[in-house]
Amino acid sequence: MNKKQLTESIFAKKSLLCVGLDTDLTKIPRHLLSEPDPTFSFNKAIIDATKDVTIAYKINTAFYEAQGVKGWISLEKTLNYIPEGIFTIADAKRGDIGNTSEQYARTFFHTYPFHSITVAPYMGSDSVKPFLQFEGKWAIVLGLTSNAGSCDFQMQQCGSEVLYQRVLRTVATWGTPDNLMFVIGATRKEPLREVRAMLPEHFLLVPGIGAQGGDLNMVCRTALNSDGGLMINVSRGIIYAGNDEHFAEKAYSEATKYQKDMSTYL
Amino acid sequence: MNKKQLTESIFAKKSLLCVGLDTDLTKIPRHLLSEPDPTFSFNKAIIDATKDVTIAYKINTAFYEAQGVKGWISLEKTLNYIPEGIFTIADAKRGDIGNTSEQYARTFFHTYPFHSITVAPYMGSDSVKPFLQFEGKWAIVLGLTSNAGSCDFQMQQCGSEVLYQRVLRTVATWGTPDNLMFVIGATRKEPLREVRAMLPEHFLLVPGIGAQGGDLNMVCRTALNSDGGLMINVSRGIIYAGNDEHFAEKAYSEATKYQKDMSTYL
Repeated sequence: MNKKQLTESIFAKKSLLCVGLDTDLTKIPRHLLSEPDPTFSFNKAIIDATKDVTIAYKINTAFYEAQGVKGWISLEKTLNYIPEGIFTIADAKRGDIGNTSEQYARTFFHTYPFHSITVAPYMGSDSVKPFLQFEGKWAIVLGLTSNAGSCDFQMQQCGSEVLYQRVLRTVATWGTPDNLMFVIGATRKEPLREVRAMLPEHFLLVPGIGAQGGDLNMVCRTALNSDGGLMINVSRGIIYAGNDEHFAEKAYSEATKYQKDMSTYL
Repeated sequence: MNKKQLTESIFAKKSLLCVGLDTDLTKIPRHLLSEPDPTFSFNKAIIDATKDVTIAYKINTAFYEAQGVKGWISLEKTLNYIPEGIFTIADAKRGDIGNTSEQYARTFFHTYPFHSITVAPYMGSDSVKPFLQFEGKWAIVLGLTSNAGSCDFQMQQCGSEVLYQRVLRTVATWGTPDNLMFVIGATRKEPLREVRAMLPEHFLLVPGIGAQGGDLNMVCRTALNSDGGLMINVSRGIIYAGNDEHFAEKAYSEATKYQKDMSTYL
């Protein structure tokens, strides 16, 4: 999916919402556990309930990998079930030396045909560039994440800037706003403003809304651009809004609240 | 496997050799492609040929993931085939926010019971600590890698030190030499000497020998400690030493050359 298509989807749905499918068998409604593939049954219901207000789904691969082969089958079924026209993210945080990153690109662009994958930048250029060689596919590189540990290295001073700024500035030269996005957490305003000033045209994937405490309105006011330019992720706050047979309606209701707030900015 | 057992294995075999199973279907001997599971057939032959001179096997998960479910089945069969007493590494470069790193730890310590996993440090403490909660299991955190891209961020000045030194110094406080190792590439001598001075007791996983040009003797002279303290990885230089029906003998012959060189230091 290219940038124009993503932008059209954002303005058509008046939504910046990315729903994170961090599907955990210990947290989904218990009545689903007797289904042949509880993970897929849960995801299917969440997708059915939220697809009209959602512009992206982010599959957190860790939750699927932990189930072994069964989990990868659930992941594939989920990916295939996501309607065409909705952006798909393999939240896999991969990155390795060049010949190995090529294999990861093959995994998440070909074997499992996602539109994008999250990439860890620590190993530098040859670990990121293999993800930038595919028409209509995207690398979403970690900039400033939303977790407590982001202070340990990302916020450390490196010369005249802090590490995550160095990462953004450097990685941005390896790709374009048409094949490269960045992860920027929603939990701090100043960084978000600075990132948008540095990278006016790039899409940002913004986690940290909901369970992690970020402020949706601050994010929209600070970092929206003329393309939309944001995919704002909510995982637990939507998919675990309910925990009984009405979980999908509750997810719809939560997702719609977010979408309504977003629509006022679009 | 604990540190004492790893050290015993090193001195019993007089070897520091880790064989990297970066098994690529486009590179293995063509006659194996007609086997029901060519990846496993190849790995089995390599393990049979090298197990007496090898103290660790490193499975580069990317090459298996790229094959989808079939690849994970090959990975599991390979892991199960590695003889007891040989250290196993999931070279997976994982790392995410706490609740997600917990899922990765579950994947590579429980679903696939490796002794260790390689971990990317960019997201900080809560991304690394979940891997340090398992008796007899290890996180091997990226310090200074052996690829060209390591200069982009790892070698950048951060205050009084460069980033990878900051990473080592900080991450070392989160664990102990009994549950934490670091990846330090073999391609530069000074960094290796400085790392050993900073972390006299930690095991180092050292890639970059062979195809990447590192110098085995320099590594041993610079960074050996009284426990051995090194696992020196060779992947392509051993597993692709031959490309016909004698590939396993060639792998044995290459592995033995490395082990003989290593034995003079043990």
